[in-house]
Amino acid sequence: MRSFDHAARIARARELMDRDGVDVLLLSLGADLPYLSGYEAIASERLTMLVVPRKGDAVLVVPRLEAPRVAEGPFELHPWDETEDPVPLVADLSNRPLVAAIGDQTWSVFLLELLSVMTETTFVSASRLTTELRIRKDPAELDALRAAGAAADRVARRIPSEIRFAGRTEREVARDVAALTVEEGHDEALFWIVASGPNAASPHHEPGSRVIERGDPVVIDFGGSKDGYCSDTTRTFVVGEPSDELVRVHAVVAEAQAAGRAAARSGVTAETVDRAARQVIDDAGYGEHFVHRTGHGIGLDVHEHPYLVEGNRRRLEPGMVFSIEPGIYLPGRLGVRIEDICVCTGDGAEPLNDSPRELVPVE
Amino acid sequence: MRSFDHAARIARARELMDRDGVDVLLLSLGADLPYLSGYEAIASERLTMLVVPRKGDAVLVVPRLEAPRVAEGPFELHPWDETEDPVPLVADLSNRPLVAAIGDQTWSVFLLELLSVMTETTFVSASRLTTELRIRKDPAELDALRAAGAAADRVARRIPSEIRFAGRTEREVARDVAALTVEEGHDEALFWIVASGPNAASPHHEPGSRVIERGDPVVIDFGGSKDGYCSDTTRTFVVGEPSDELVRVHAVVAEAQAAGRAAARSGVTAETVDRAARQVIDDAGYGEHFVHRTGHGIGLDVHEHPYLVEGNRRRLEPGMVFSIEPGIYLPGRLGVRIEDICVCTGDGAEPLNDSPRELVPVE
Repeated sequence: MRSFDHAARIARARELMDRDGVDVLLLSLGADLPYLSGYEAIASERLTMLVVPRKGDAVLVVPRLEAPRVAEGPFELHPWDETEDPVPLVADLSNRPLVAAIGDQTWSVFLLELLSVMTETTFVSASRLTTELRIRKDPAELDALRAAGAAADRVARRIPSEIRFAGRTEREVARDVAALTVEEGHDEALFWIVASGPNAASPHHEPGSRVIERGDPVVIDFGGSKDGYCSDTTRTFVVGEPSDELVRVHAVVAEAQAAGRAAARSGVTAETVDRAARQVIDDAGYGEHFVHRTGHGIGLDVHEHPYLVEGNRRRLEPGMVFSIEPGIYLPGRLGVRIEDICVCTGDGAEPLNDSPRELVPVE
Repeated sequence: MRSFDHAARIARARELMDRDGVDVLLLSLGADLPYLSGYEAIASERLTMLVVPRKGDAVLVVPRLEAPRVAEGPFELHPWDETEDPVPLVADLSNRPLVAAIGDQTWSVFLLELLSVMTETTFVSASRLTTELRIRKDPAELDALRAAGAAADRVARRIPSEIRFAGRTEREVARDVAALTVEEGHDEALFWIVASGPNAASPHHEPGSRVIERGDPVVIDFGGSKDGYCSDTTRTFVVGEPSDELVRVHAVVAEAQAAGRAAARSGVTAETVDRAARQVIDDAGYGEHFVHRTGHGIGLDVHEHPYLVEGNRRRLEPGMVFSIEPGIYLPGRLGVRIEDICVCTGDGAEPLNDSPRELVPVE
């Protein structure tokens, strides 16, 4: 396990609370909590919440049965019993704040209960603070992301020789991909899209019972986490010989992805990278079939800021890490996507993935 | 895949909306959405939301790239583009409601945005409606839960002969348990607690790098989903010969678990079942070490109503399905838990699990 300085992160969060006039930070599900405390909440009807007042000690409110899971951290531990209500406890620890920032992924049922007991408090999204803390990765975080990316590349390289496609279902192939994801050093596999033939036109396809045929394109988009930090890469394979159309579409996506990587560097806006990739696809006449943004930030969450999307004028800075993943999706026929994670550097974007980006044949 | 009558479920939801004066139901993450629509949202910064007005058509607001995932259902599909904001769209479709009921697991960031544009609307928790719909399982749901329970039992029976414990880490054993969970017919494994030796005293232990030793108790609490419905069972194993203390504690938990099963029947309150199990553990002098409620409802969610906990005076009814899972946790030494899923019937509780409940020896 890598170790990070959570106390220093909480101190930086407090500086931003001062700047923004936030009296208390309330974090539950999602990566803000492990980023600041080292502890990740279990998604559950039992509330876990880190209460960080602008002044005074941070307190982790946790169900009693989960208290033994919590390692030492820069917070006091406050377990609550099964017959207690943790919401008034959080309200008390928050000490009548005027402004509370609440973690984006906190279940709404808890926010509704907090609103009902903290009637004088204005609630705002915590990500206005936490994004500023998390959007630039420090050297230890970059090391973790590099290690996760390298593990994903080893999986991608093993796919053609070790996984059989023709005659098997997407679900079977997906299980093999998930198993390799763990075998190659991730602590867990997080997702495993296997989209074959016409299903490849569904960007977030759920692998199902379709039997893969010769000639199919197969989009595989997978990732896992290692020491908390995520990998996320996509390659498009072909079972045997590709059709002319598939070869043509793949070449366009590869060119768009390279254009995105070439455009990404410190000082340009996030939307500039999206435009660079999209221009290639527009020019080739497939613009209406590139139905998603070009990329998303990645770190402790698979999706986090910065988002590479039209309208996002945030300027890229060294240490920002994001995917570049254009795709073309032709409904009922085929789909292609190519995705790398890249780190923004002073003069460019360094890919953390380097497995072959061509249309790799599989059997 | 099993099929359920989602249109009828939406019609019943509307009856409850009439009864409770709810103008619109807004569902995102969690099982309320698949219960009513057949579609399960992806947890993401991209909003998916089913808008069910009291009168008029239901509309599923979904990110455009996920629209191809959505099967036909009793709703119109409204995809939104990457450069659009789905929140005003949901507000428009909601048509100025006085009262909106929002799904419990919806991310708070979306509720905050909805609150900022729907300033005349009072938001309440959707579970006051959806619990009434989901708490009694119909025959098709009971079939699905029975099938999931039987699959979990096959896993539990294979553990002693097929998984090696001594000298391996908890994480390795957990991966084997997860693999068996899928092999035995679940669509996916959902959780796999493997808590050995002193770690067995942590009810929600995360399987880690501890190497399992001879004499260790090992609490294995695992489950998966099959056709959307969940299994959840716990057995406590021992590696070789148990200590006298482990034998004694296990016998108390087994007696408490049997007492819980004997107490559960139509007409008694949920807390009655908790008290019956707890009394046995209190009488044996371990009361302070049974740190959690006796059980939780289960269905499309692993945890749902009814909760078997002190203070819950809800009466059990035929078709309610819940776990009965007392445990004793001695910090630093050992832990034991035994868990079955049970269906409330007219005159008792029928267990959906029947793998051996004794302290099963493993190697």
